[in-house]
Amino acid sequence: MEFKAKDIAMLVNGIIIGNPDKVISNFAKIEEAKSDCISFFSNEKYAKYLEHTQAGVLLVSKDFNLKVSETTTLIKVENAYEATAQLLHYYQSIQHKIGIESPSFVAQSAQILENVYIGAFAYVSENVNIGKNVKIYPNAFIGKNVIIKDDTVIHSGVKIYQDCKIGANCIIHSGVVIGSDGFGFAPTADGSFQKIPQVGNVVLHDFVEIGANTVIDRATMGSTLIHSGVKLDNLIQVAHNVVIGKNTVIAAQAGISGSTKIGEQVMIGGQAGIVGHIEIANGARINAQSGVSKSIKLENAAVTGSPASDYQSMLKAQVLLKKLPLIWEKLLKLESKLNS
Amino acid sequence: MEFKAKDIAMLVNGIIIGNPDKVISNFAKIEEAKSDCISFFSNEKYAKYLEHTQAGVLLVSKDFNLKVSETTTLIKVENAYEATAQLLHYYQSIQHKIGIESPSFVAQSAQILENVYIGAFAYVSENVNIGKNVKIYPNAFIGKNVIIKDDTVIHSGVKIYQDCKIGANCIIHSGVVIGSDGFGFAPTADGSFQKIPQVGNVVLHDFVEIGANTVIDRATMGSTLIHSGVKLDNLIQVAHNVVIGKNTVIAAQAGISGSTKIGEQVMIGGQAGIVGHIEIANGARINAQSGVSKSIKLENAAVTGSPASDYQSMLKAQVLLKKLPLIWEKLLKLESKLNS
Amino acid sequence: MEFKAKDIAMLVNGIIIGNPDKVISNFAKIEEAKSDCISFFSNEKYAKYLEHTQAGVLLVSKDFNLKVSETTTLIKVENAYEATAQLLHYYQSIQHKIGIESPSFVAQSAQILENVYIGAFAYVSENVNIGKNVKIYPNAFIGKNVIIKDDTVIHSGVKIYQDCKIGANCIIHSGVVIGSDGFGFAPTADGSFQKIPQVGNVVLHDFVEIGANTVIDRATMGSTLIHSGVKLDNLIQVAHNVVIGKNTVIAAQAGISGSTKIGEQVMIGGQAGIVGHIEIANGARINAQSGVSKSIKLENAAVTGSPASDYQSMLKAQVLLKKLPLIWEKLLKLESKLNS
Repeated sequence: MEFKAKDIAMLVNGIIIGNPDKVISNFAKIEEAKSDCISFFSNEKYAKYLEHTQAGVLLVSKDFNLKVSETTTLIKVENAYEATAQLLHYYQSIQHKIGIESPSFVAQSAQILENVYIGAFAYVSENVNIGKNVKIYPNAFIGKNVIIKDDTVIHSGVKIYQDCKIGANCIIHSGVVIGSDGFGFAPTADGSFQKIPQVGNVVLHDFVEIGANTVIDRATMGSTLIHSGVKLDNLIQVAHNVVIGKNTVIAAQAGISGSTKIGEQVMIGGQAGIVGHIEIANGARINAQSGVSKSIKLENAAVTGSPASDYQSMLKAQVLLKKLPLIWEKLLKLESKLNS
Repeated sequence: MEFKAKDIAMLVNGIIIGNPDKVISNFAKIEEAKSDCISFFSNEKYAKYLEHTQAGVLLVSKDFNLKVSETTTLIKVENAYEATAQLLHYYQSIQHKIGIESPSFVAQSAQILENVYIGAFAYVSENVNIGKNVKIYPNAFIGKNVIIKDDTVIHSGVKIYQDCKIGANCIIHSGVVIGSDGFGFAPTADGSFQKIPQVGNVVLHDFVEIGANTVIDRATMGSTLIHSGVKLDNLIQVAHNVVIGKNTVIAAQAGISGSTKIGEQVMIGGQAGIVGHIEIANGARINAQSGVSKSIKLENAAVTGSPASDYQSMLKAQVLLKKLPLIWEKLLKLESKLNS
Repeated sequence: MEFKAKDIAMLVNGIIIGNPDKVISNFAKIEEAKSDCISFFSNEKYAKYLEHTQAGVLLVSKDFNLKVSETTTLIKVENAYEATAQLLHYYQSIQHKIGIESPSFVAQSAQILENVYIGAFAYVSENVNIGKNVKIYPNAFIGKNVIIKDDTVIHSGVKIYQDCKIGANCIIHSGVVIGSDGFGFAPTADGSFQKIPQVGNVVLHDFVEIGANTVIDRATMGSTLIHSGVKLDNLIQVAHNVVIGKNTVIAAQAGISGSTKIGEQVMIGGQAGIVGHIEIANGARINAQSGVSKSIKLENAAVTGSPASDYQSMLKAQVLLKKLPLIWEKLLKLESKLNS
């Protein structure tokens, strides 16, 4: 990207102090900014960096009166933090392309609304339904009968199996697989396992973001269901028939086993594992690397450990774990004292 | 999909009671079925749902005589459970396409038998050998000299490096990588690591299923070997020169380090980790999140914990872990009592 | 591959004893080699296999005088181990293709130096800069403004988001995602989370190898930074703004949370997790499945456990953990003895 200070000022409704033609091509923190960067100052804690910042352009609030280098162009705005957020969102929105690149594969029966981007080597199967402003990046695969609602972004290399439904304003990062078969097999008499057909689907509601290389399996029957506002990090496993409630946030490499129901506003730490067929109450907090083997029935409960247990008592136990050699020593001493 | 009741009846050799032209387009459990769904009743436990089910079509056994809504068409069969399984398998089998879509890349030296599907943007390299009825979905990459035997399904975006061999009747889900380099480096005098070339391959026998985004590294020399009937879930790591025995089942996000040999009929839970260069006996059961650091020599042994140990005694220890604060308190009390 | 003994001898400057026209097509260990394999003997420990090896060609050192089958052609070299390494590297180097296959997508503004391979269905975006001898395999996606330096190999299906920089002599395996958005969200009053735009990038220095399906998120601002010589195994999570120091080696399925700084020559075991915003000293060793929740300030420190602690004392504690039932029993006995 390349922007002039005056273009940015117009965008955020700001006043320029310095060179209006100053060109910047990058965002940076105030302490790391070089002369081709725009930065912002909205927290007094960072005042110490002002004197030496090399930022080409600096967004500041209108009452700003501290000293910066003459080579730094100031843009004064009502609220520097909000203006920065506005600018960043604008920057991200203009990244996207429009149009259908060639060669791509779009089945005749697919329905595609306006303002869509379909990148080269993307595959849109029969009866797919794509809403307004949807962006499908190169090498993505959209299976038969899939529905993708307005304003959703499908990054390159995403694979969505047939019959899945993706809500509006979702962001699906590269390498994500949605709708692969659930892991269901029936043991047979000869020791082998017979596949149980997985004929359900995956349904994502609106404003869901899915991190790179995460996998969400389709339901055996019915739907694996991700409610609106859910944010999944990278490399997460969501098994068949799982339900994840509204605004729940799950960190990287966590895994949810089959048919488990996660409540709303739950927070799950990285590499945590949750067994199948249990329920996690709204607002629960599951620490990183926890192994949850039983339902959490108490709302807002916090757990840690593997197997997971109440956070506070588990922390105490973990501290004492390191004292086990001392405990053992004391115990043997007491024993011998008492025996003599 | 869209099926009429009479078509289904013919397929499963059943007798229709109700509207033979009733159209269904989905499978569902009896308690969730809507009027466009087919469901089945084979277990008395679910009899309570019969009265209110909205299923358009219901598969029941021939001696069925309970009451259902008049809008539900019954199909009476010898065995409702088996007829359902038959129907589900039929449904899955008709999902697949046939033919070579354009544009795809198929090297002239590749040999391809009849009834194959190669999707658009799939890449089939030199000297690849593809058996009958194999389905290769869009954006898959098949490296040089790879062999894929009859009836195997390669989902979209699978990557198979050169020289690997895939058996018959395998299912490889999207995002799987087979044959990437093993993680082998030799330390050098200056602290850097020199790559050890990985010139082996990966061999999958028949009826293997590999879950989405799982990775199986090629052997340094020789083969990383997955025996027939093995089922791997999503996001699993199988390192170079690992051997996995017949009918072993591994849950999501587990990891097997280099050169470890897993026996037959082993069950490994999610997120379990197994160190390199050890052996796991036939029938062993490794609990989720276990960390196995030594060979398991006893057949059918069960382990849990990290480091993993005998399941029963480890469970007891884990329960007492939570009592550590109490243990510590009691110990200090005894100590002071004895000292006074 | 197919090589004659005389071609190999020329390559490694060796002397043939036996049939110079013997054809081999595979590498193998001496104990597994078949007649179409080349193997090597450089360690006396393996002398027991010499008598029965079926290797078609055997690389040995010049003073070799042990007995092998008459069907095995010997190639005598200065140093058998080094000659083997040389041969393996040669073999790997000739695997790569040259040229731009069709159809691929290369933006007009992309700059591409000589001797490059761009596979079919690869996508090279605007302003991408590709160095000499770079190999980009089929179905890879290279986002806008990405720089890839000389001699780097991008395997099939790799996805690199815009603005990222890849050094020289790197190897990026299939399914890797570089530059996906960091996991950053701000809570809002209604319980939903607002995305924090991620406008930084990922920078890889030279000689970095990244294993299959690993993910490296872009920085919120600034760069997620992987220094030269770093080796990452498969399915690893590297969050936004992480820094990984020179020659650090990380095993499969480990995860590094946001803004954490890993030193040089650190070794991290499989499935280990490291929380965000901490620092790990140079030379630290983090055991598999560890959960590191605090900075490691001591160089070359070794830790294990979750939460992680000093390796030696943690090992002792883990051994005693199994004795907890005994500890509990002894404690209750002492208590009752003292009370009576």
